[in-house]
Amino acid sequence: MQVSISNAIPRSDQSVGIVETQYYRFADPPQGFVLESGEELGPITVAYETYGDLNERKSNAILILHALTGDANAAGRHAGETRPGWWEELIGPGKAFDTDKYFVICSNVLGGCRGTTGPSSTNPETGKRYDLDFPVITISDLVNVECRLIDFLGIDRLLAVAGGSMGGMQGLQWLTAHADRLHGAIIIATTARHSPQQIAFNEVGRQAIMTDPDWRGGRYDGHPPAKGLAVARMIGHITYMSDASMAEKFGRRIREELPRHRFSNGFEVEEYLRYNGDRFVERFDANSYLYITKAMDNFDLSRGRALHHALTGVKAKVMLVAFKSDWLYPVAQSREIARACKLAGVDTTYCEIDSNCGHDAFLLEVEEESHLVKHFLIKVSQDLDRV
Amino acid sequence: MQVSISNAIPRSDQSVGIVETQYYRFADPPQGFVLESGEELGPITVAYETYGDLNERKSNAILILHALTGDANAAGRHAGETRPGWWEELIGPGKAFDTDKYFVICSNVLGGCRGTTGPSSTNPETGKRYDLDFPVITISDLVNVECRLIDFLGIDRLLAVAGGSMGGMQGLQWLTAHADRLHGAIIIATTARHSPQQIAFNEVGRQAIMTDPDWRGGRYDGHPPAKGLAVARMIGHITYMSDASMAEKFGRRIREELPRHRFSNGFEVEEYLRYNGDRFVERFDANSYLYITKAMDNFDLSRGRALHHALTGVKAKVMLVAFKSDWLYPVAQSREIARACKLAGVDTTYCEIDSNCGHDAFLLEVEEESHLVKHFLIKVSQDLDRV
Repeated sequence: MQVSISNAIPRSDQSVGIVETQYYRFADPPQGFVLESGEELGPITVAYETYGDLNERKSNAILILHALTGDANAAGRHAGETRPGWWEELIGPGKAFDTDKYFVICSNVLGGCRGTTGPSSTNPETGKRYDLDFPVITISDLVNVECRLIDFLGIDRLLAVAGGSMGGMQGLQWLTAHADRLHGAIIIATTARHSPQQIAFNEVGRQAIMTDPDWRGGRYDGHPPAKGLAVARMIGHITYMSDASMAEKFGRRIREELPRHRFSNGFEVEEYLRYNGDRFVERFDANSYLYITKAMDNFDLSRGRALHHALTGVKAKVMLVAFKSDWLYPVAQSREIARACKLAGVDTTYCEIDSNCGHDAFLLEVEEESHLVKHFLIKVSQDLDRV
Repeated sequence: MQVSISNAIPRSDQSVGIVETQYYRFADPPQGFVLESGEELGPITVAYETYGDLNERKSNAILILHALTGDANAAGRHAGETRPGWWEELIGPGKAFDTDKYFVICSNVLGGCRGTTGPSSTNPETGKRYDLDFPVITISDLVNVECRLIDFLGIDRLLAVAGGSMGGMQGLQWLTAHADRLHGAIIIATTARHSPQQIAFNEVGRQAIMTDPDWRGGRYDGHPPAKGLAVARMIGHITYMSDASMAEKFGRRIREELPRHRFSNGFEVEEYLRYNGDRFVERFDANSYLYITKAMDNFDLSRGRALHHALTGVKAKVMLVAFKSDWLYPVAQSREIARACKLAGVDTTYCEIDSNCGHDAFLLEVEEESHLVKHFLIKVSQDLDRV
């Protein structure tokens, strides 16, 4: 289905307002939380935020799943901050994820560096940062931790999970590993498994970090490998945009006012990449980047089976969304999931949105995305009310 | 035109055999060679090789133009070496560039590190390496130096120039700036100007080099920024291949026999990139990488005019070749040149080859390429004989 909407829905400018991150701690030693590898980890703290109210039946909860560098702050502003959450345009009163109707939850992933336990957390055994003593984690581990949070919140079954990119991978894992615990899944701009090209881009980013002498085998407390991490982020940014969106945004324009040095005469695109690379270092941990990208590369929903076999037993309704100019997670990968869902008898909608924004479209093409999300959630809710 | 060839031409296995690089030196101080920037450089040594014999009329010379990391050794083997030249499959007796008929020349570009003067050469004023005292160079400078070599060889007019990628850029520069000095131009997998995405990939490579502490502001004599240069090369390799060729070559295969470390459990594609990154450091100079990629980014055949105005006055026949899976230099960029050539009244053939090999196709799709080159050269020669 190609979406073409002539009458745009009125967009809500309302925000959930000032929000605060909450913390849930579990798996205190000695019991620990068992990872896919068999290793135990504990205690685990999960940073999460909620918007809206859980209804009495506890049937209106939606879990938002973030991408590689996201965090629990999906909507609203933290006190003193000017920037809103990363999916502000979709979450709030009257918006697609309507906080007047739904109880919306978002948590930082396991292995992250934005409040949830990860390699920069303190290892209780040593009193120091885990760094590379942090165990290998998988997308399955991320989702199992999210499951524990949902248990803690007293929710038996989610109305839906929703996420793009790595958030979509988590959504696929929810669908298949926790089929009884959700009614719907919104899976955006993602894949059932990384292609070698996707692995390659991640690996170059990891190499940029690990070859930075400041990385020091992961033990860089206080002196992060800023240059390597910035290069990794620059590579990321190229893959998140499209040739067309770059042409529109930068063209070959030169920022004449900038001091020229020999190899950087100031093409705007160069300034943009360097600026964003440098800023990223302030908010993201290099070891988290290594652990999480590796979890993405290792994710494989099919694991040697035909993909539709992996989807057998899925009970939730599924909506898949892909963007035409996304060359990092090309539409063919979403189509493959859609086809497999249909072969497995899953109630599936597949939507391809025309966009120039590349992979970033899942964060930027909010109008069409809002439409699709809103109607999908209404459908899932209606079916639920009928039961 | 889409090429589809059912009866393959028999491929010649003959080689030009053992070859030797020659050197031409000019612009000894004080006169110097004037660059596009106005700066003077001298002396300049050009490393070049020739295959076949120049005929009496000096009308059978073809200049081969190499890509970013190529060199003068386009065909044959150096004594003691096992690897043949980079375009061995196209150059030799009975091959597309038939050395029984043509006198084939290839030189290392200005700014390079394979025999021609570049940043790693000795600055006569200081007795030390130029490093960043080497002047900024442009594609126009590269071509003007090639022109001097052609003068030195006593050739008034080339039968053709031919090259892919940055070789194609040089070809376009030859066409427009030295219109009287060539009868034909074979322009493969290239562009009239880099898009911001192409600039962005180069810039990330440059940043990887310049943020390596071993780069030391370009003064790394004896201790090159090996890790940064390897990362730059890894980024390059990803852009040279296609998603499909990577899938075919590596899939998600894991090399179990390799020692596993935490972030590199040995996807074959990771090993490939790391291996090639590390090997590249042995043969390429980091500062050359900076100077040459910047020359590519700054190249702009149109310079604010409509592209066909830049091509007015071109007298040579032109053959443009592009590859469908090339996403670094996508077919649209070659089509734009073809369209502009036709608007400018240039005798132009445009060929699009089906290939999975991505940008590397210009080095790998030798069979169809050979066909096209062979027939184009015959046509150019025949027209020349008629005059």
